[in-house]
Amino acid sequence: MSDDLFAGLDKCAANFVPLSPVSFLQQTAHTHADRTAIVYHDLRLSYAQMHDRVARVTSALAARGIGAGDVVSIMAPNVPAMLEAHYAVPAAGAVLNPINIRLDAATVAYILGHCRAKLILVDPDFLDVVEQARAAMDAPPDVVVVADPAAGAGVPEGAVTYDDLLREGDPETSLMLPADEWSPIAINYTSGTTGDPKGVVYSHRGAYLNATANALTFGMDAWTNYLWILPMFHCSGWSHTWAVTLAGGTHICLRQVAAAAIFDLIVDERVTHCCAAPVVMNTLIHADPSVIRRPTARVKIATGGAPPSSTVIAGMEDLGFSVTHLYGLTETYGPATINAPDPESDAPLDERARQMARQGIGHPLLTDYRIASPETGAPGARDGDALGEIQLRSNTVMMGYLQDPDETARAFAGGWFHSGDLAVHHPDGMLEIKDRLKDVIISGGENISSVEIEEILTRHDAVMEAAVVAAPSEKWGETPCAFVALKAGAKVSGDDLVDHCRAHMAGFKVPARVVVVDELPKSATGKIQKYELRQRAAEMVDAKP
Amino acid sequence: MSDDLFAGLDKCAANFVPLSPVSFLQQTAHTHADRTAIVYHDLRLSYAQMHDRVARVTSALAARGIGAGDVVSIMAPNVPAMLEAHYAVPAAGAVLNPINIRLDAATVAYILGHCRAKLILVDPDFLDVVEQARAAMDAPPDVVVVADPAAGAGVPEGAVTYDDLLREGDPETSLMLPADEWSPIAINYTSGTTGDPKGVVYSHRGAYLNATANALTFGMDAWTNYLWILPMFHCSGWSHTWAVTLAGGTHICLRQVAAAAIFDLIVDERVTHCCAAPVVMNTLIHADPSVIRRPTARVKIATGGAPPSSTVIAGMEDLGFSVTHLYGLTETYGPATINAPDPESDAPLDERARQMARQGIGHPLLTDYRIASPETGAPGARDGDALGEIQLRSNTVMMGYLQDPDETARAFAGGWFHSGDLAVHHPDGMLEIKDRLKDVIISGGENISSVEIEEILTRHDAVMEAAVVAAPSEKWGETPCAFVALKAGAKVSGDDLVDHCRAHMAGFKVPARVVVVDELPKSATGKIQKYELRQRAAEMVDAKP
Repeated sequence: MSDDLFAGLDKCAANFVPLSPVSFLQQTAHTHADRTAIVYHDLRLSYAQMHDRVARVTSALAARGIGAGDVVSIMAPNVPAMLEAHYAVPAAGAVLNPINIRLDAATVAYILGHCRAKLILVDPDFLDVVEQARAAMDAPPDVVVVADPAAGAGVPEGAVTYDDLLREGDPETSLMLPADEWSPIAINYTSGTTGDPKGVVYSHRGAYLNATANALTFGMDAWTNYLWILPMFHCSGWSHTWAVTLAGGTHICLRQVAAAAIFDLIVDERVTHCCAAPVVMNTLIHADPSVIRRPTARVKIATGGAPPSSTVIAGMEDLGFSVTHLYGLTETYGPATINAPDPESDAPLDERARQMARQGIGHPLLTDYRIASPETGAPGARDGDALGEIQLRSNTVMMGYLQDPDETARAFAGGWFHSGDLAVHHPDGMLEIKDRLKDVIISGGENISSVEIEEILTRHDAVMEAAVVAAPSEKWGETPCAFVALKAGAKVSGDDLVDHCRAHMAGFKVPARVVVVDELPKSATGKIQKYELRQRAAEMVDAKP
Repeated sequence: MSDDLFAGLDKCAANFVPLSPVSFLQQTAHTHADRTAIVYHDLRLSYAQMHDRVARVTSALAARGIGAGDVVSIMAPNVPAMLEAHYAVPAAGAVLNPINIRLDAATVAYILGHCRAKLILVDPDFLDVVEQARAAMDAPPDVVVVADPAAGAGVPEGAVTYDDLLREGDPETSLMLPADEWSPIAINYTSGTTGDPKGVVYSHRGAYLNATANALTFGMDAWTNYLWILPMFHCSGWSHTWAVTLAGGTHICLRQVAAAAIFDLIVDERVTHCCAAPVVMNTLIHADPSVIRRPTARVKIATGGAPPSSTVIAGMEDLGFSVTHLYGLTETYGPATINAPDPESDAPLDERARQMARQGIGHPLLTDYRIASPETGAPGARDGDALGEIQLRSNTVMMGYLQDPDETARAFAGGWFHSGDLAVHHPDGMLEIKDRLKDVIISGGENISSVEIEEILTRHDAVMEAAVVAAPSEKWGETPCAFVALKAGAKVSGDDLVDHCRAHMAGFKVPARVVVVDELPKSATGKIQKYELRQRAAEMVDAKP
């Protein structure tokens, strides 16, 4: 007997396993081998089959030289390969980098280069963009095409395909868990506050815990049928790429967001859960009545990016959905706080919508959050009135920004993650966002960096200064609206500058309008007053005939 | 920029927090400050109030010299202090040791001495036993009495009470998280296979993960009202002491298991979840009709220790409950596998009972389990036929046995935890226990070590050899039945030996009968054939008039 009472109680293989979402697939293939894991058109894969396919891809990647710490990118819609990559890539010891399919070649090239991608899995419809990106790179990644009969484009002659990986691979390959759970599993790029996208790095531990928290708060279990409306390239699908598997539920894949397909899948596949930006909910509500079908049991739909309006909540309730409002950032693996409808509430719609507009309370595994002065770090009062930056501290906060120690240090200053969102903290614990520190525009669920657009505008010879803000948009939630001051004597129209933008950035980032002004409004210290520009942008929308 | 792609992504206060159930109370007091945390008779405490009380007790313990690695025992029924101790003790850096309230003074003394308890919290009704135990010790722990008007006994003059701790303590004290999540949080003693109880040590990490898994599989949320029928001293209440808090649900305390009180609380407090041994469910089913009250919504009840029979399932369904069958051991923080009723099943009762008798599939955070040869470790087939020992590998397996490196090494041999239960593994993933390697008798939900009873029997002058096995019992599930061979020429009756047992062990362990035989059945190698004795014990029960 040792004198130290707790001597000899060491970690061993029986009682310590690194936390990794890869284990979710191992476990569910063990506990629910015959349950349906994936549905996509006529394809139905059981968890045993999904595990078999993932093992094959894992071993094929290894055979192609992908190993510990290598980055594998993927540019694809919500198809089975996109989901499987969330397991096969980390199970090979590598790191997954999902790329937003709406990005332009220059940005894709920047991302591939920045994270030193060794290989990219590409859907045929995005092969052109990827090839343009590769042409601009010194050390472009290898390409594997994810063939899909439902894609618009075909597979080029001689291309290596995902099916080749499935054929090459050995289904008996063991999925590898990381030796250290504090290892990167994914890099999701965010536009953030500066022009260049930042690579947000997720750890196996953080992904495991955020997925678990989301399965818990969203009430997932083995009878969950999850419809993939939310793109998986957004924060690893808000961690649901892993959470649904953990719960033993079914992933229902969806290539393209279209009302008819969504209603059909919801009824035919008995969907229980889905996530969608407010713009998608609007599409469903205003869909042609001939395609609308009502589910037999109420479907939980979670939304984020913008608070759901009372019109949207009522419209979705009429369609048979129940709306949950989530708040989070790429840096928090997606959802960090949740505002779930109170099952015991019989408040009228307006009151419920007012409640639901708030960003909610921390999910059960979010360790701590507060509002605080972004400058001094002094915590704000929980009185529903004091304004402060939302700051978080949790295992479900990113490892940091890839190759960006300065931004990482700034984000974690004082031992809290700085969200850049200004909110009040209500006495009941809920956060409510009032304004944004960062100038990010959220349009149709996509983050658009105002700084990126400003940089491109100021590259135009005639432009002296540019400021881009969000204008409210019924369809997209927000759209970028630009204000520019011209160089002395220069002449250019707003429409010309819109064209200039269109030539230099992804289509969804192009400002709805560019307004030429004499001078941008500035504070005494010379800072552009974006608040004032936001008001003007909103007024212009209201004034529109 | 570093050449190592992932350089500089270090743990910091913003993105890494040691996993500890203590954080659940911090979080829920933050997110659900005004929700009811604890109900006990007229006492209703919000989570803010519970946090305040826990902080006071934490600081009072620290002021009384309790610090890192010290052990605080508690011997109490399911009263608020018992629940609060699960947070206050670890928040002081100490380790909680809940003691089964049915144990005798000698065993209590053994436990207190073995874990070197510095302080014990005691309910008045168990003060006598604790004082007897202390009298037998060289370095007895300090005593704090948990006064309770509902207890039979009063508080002795001059005793330090839990209310004193609440008065002494500072509610502003911060609850401490461990520096390392691989630190002990609790020691739960199990009778195990040898006479002396073994101290099963839980870590903060394991408790955090098992509580999370159980909240997930049992479907807990902020609207959960959990009735404390299951003793909290059993595997830290199957981790539910922590899981209910994590979910933001309400703990409804219950001092004594009595049908009328249970039905009243279920209806009046709108109970949604509870756990109970089969014997308790039988008590409810056969309760006096005048005390039976039916809940308005179906109540989930989880059971373990013995499979629920079709009679019990049907009886509980009639009463408005839905039965879930769990399997686990003290060594797995309680539930490790779960057999939940299939909401989509319309099978007849008999078929459902047959399904429900199985021990189920691993919960979502149980990393791996299998059946294997206990000798060679060769995995058994998943064919519903091959028999093997259930072996587990998971973060939700204990750190080891306190001060028992040999038993710890044996339990973890080959990198798997050896459960000692023999089962088949069905093709659908479910485990079904067929026999027991260890000779533990489970009576009324309590584990009784056959070896302990055998040792006490052989201490009697007349007894040469003793073997104790489980006999089926309608009321208790199992009861101990002893077979003894006497020394040459010695004479003693079975009833005398029952009396001998009663004088030397806790009442619930006393064998229902002691049978004197000429010779115990033995194998060729001289091993007592308990299998044969079990059959004879069962036949004697059947033959009983």
